[in-house]
Amino acid sequence: MTGGAREQLLDAASDIMREGDTIDLSLSELSLRAGLNSALVKYYFGNKNGLMSALLDRNMGKIVTDLGALVAKDMPPEEKLRRHISGVIDTYYTFPYLNRLMMRMIRDSAPVEAARIAERYLKPISRAYEKLIEEGVKAGKFRPVDPQLFYFSVTGAADRFFAARLVLRHCYDQADISQEMRDAYREHTIGLIMRGLLID
Amino acid sequence: MTGGAREQLLDAASDIMREGDTIDLSLSELSLRAGLNSALVKYYFGNKNGLMSALLDRNMGKIVTDLGALVAKDMPPEEKLRRHISGVIDTYYTFPYLNRLMMRMIRDSAPVEAARIAERYLKPISRAYEKLIEEGVKAGKFRPVDPQLFYFSVTGAADRFFAARLVLRHCYDQADISQEMRDAYREHTIGLIMRGLLID
Repeated sequence: MTGGAREQLLDAASDIMREGDTIDLSLSELSLRAGLNSALVKYYFGNKNGLMSALLDRNMGKIVTDLGALVAKDMPPEEKLRRHISGVIDTYYTFPYLNRLMMRMIRDSAPVEAARIAERYLKPISRAYEKLIEEGVKAGKFRPVDPQLFYFSVTGAADRFFAARLVLRHCYDQADISQEMRDAYREHTIGLIMRGLLID
Repeated sequence: MTGGAREQLLDAASDIMREGDTIDLSLSELSLRAGLNSALVKYYFGNKNGLMSALLDRNMGKIVTDLGALVAKDMPPEEKLRRHISGVIDTYYTFPYLNRLMMRMIRDSAPVEAARIAERYLKPISRAYEKLIEEGVKAGKFRPVDPQLFYFSVTGAADRFFAARLVLRHCYDQADISQEMRDAYREHTIGLIMRGLLID
């Protein structure tokens, strides 16, 4: 583990959420896992909510940056979208709790914090989708779908699959989603969504 | 409200979860909402967990029955699937908490209860998807997708959209998902998924 105590705490929180399929976090579990005194949470983040907010920033910040860079690339729109969907699947494989964490932060935070999350993450993603779909429609490649609804279709497919680890573990005696299953789902999702969007 | 105190308690629990976008429920809130003494929860359901389990049974039972009846119908497979996707969107519009409730029950229940949920709901749904996809492939209408992965795509799209009420309310000053938005999302989802699945 690198990056000092602050990063160690964020890594530990991320590991606990991923392994437990939960966004409920106890400070004692966190401090045990990170091998650090839980007073450091107060020092670095103010409180547990501050730590969860910092974790959200770390994960979502990367998504927004990557998506912006991808949309700006000189590349056919359908190839951009394929790469984006592929990235979304990989992100949810690594951080299956991500959407639940964001929903929780939006619901339980003060209005000013919810507005900040919307400004920094949701709105840039929304604009990137608008741009990408518009580009594809202009190029005669995409059907004119609603970008916002399309965004729900893409992230919904990824979020639901990885939230299903729980079902696999408790109902089908399957320990976890393997890299092979992730790869199969990546191909499936790209195939289904791209065929749904592209003009024949 | 009809059906006596038991149904009144289930209706009240459903209303609270839908309006609050939460699956956290307090007995005092429930008793206030239903206009009934909270001791009746103990009488009818044993405890709060029993009530949540009964609510899950009521919602999921209908889905499994409807899906089974649809698959058994003498109707082209693509028409069955269109109707099914339409029904899934309507179900999540009415019970946006449904998937989160099921995940919670699977995670927090004893293994025997998790196995019961799998047997009664997840496995029948899984078998119905297998049958429906197989039928469409045999008829030369569907691409040979993995039915389990396809199931995740369909329910993921619906679940994610309605879980997003929270985002609309807190980030975009939109009070709720209107019937018009539901209808637009229904058309969008059917279009995207059917085009993704059908052979050109």
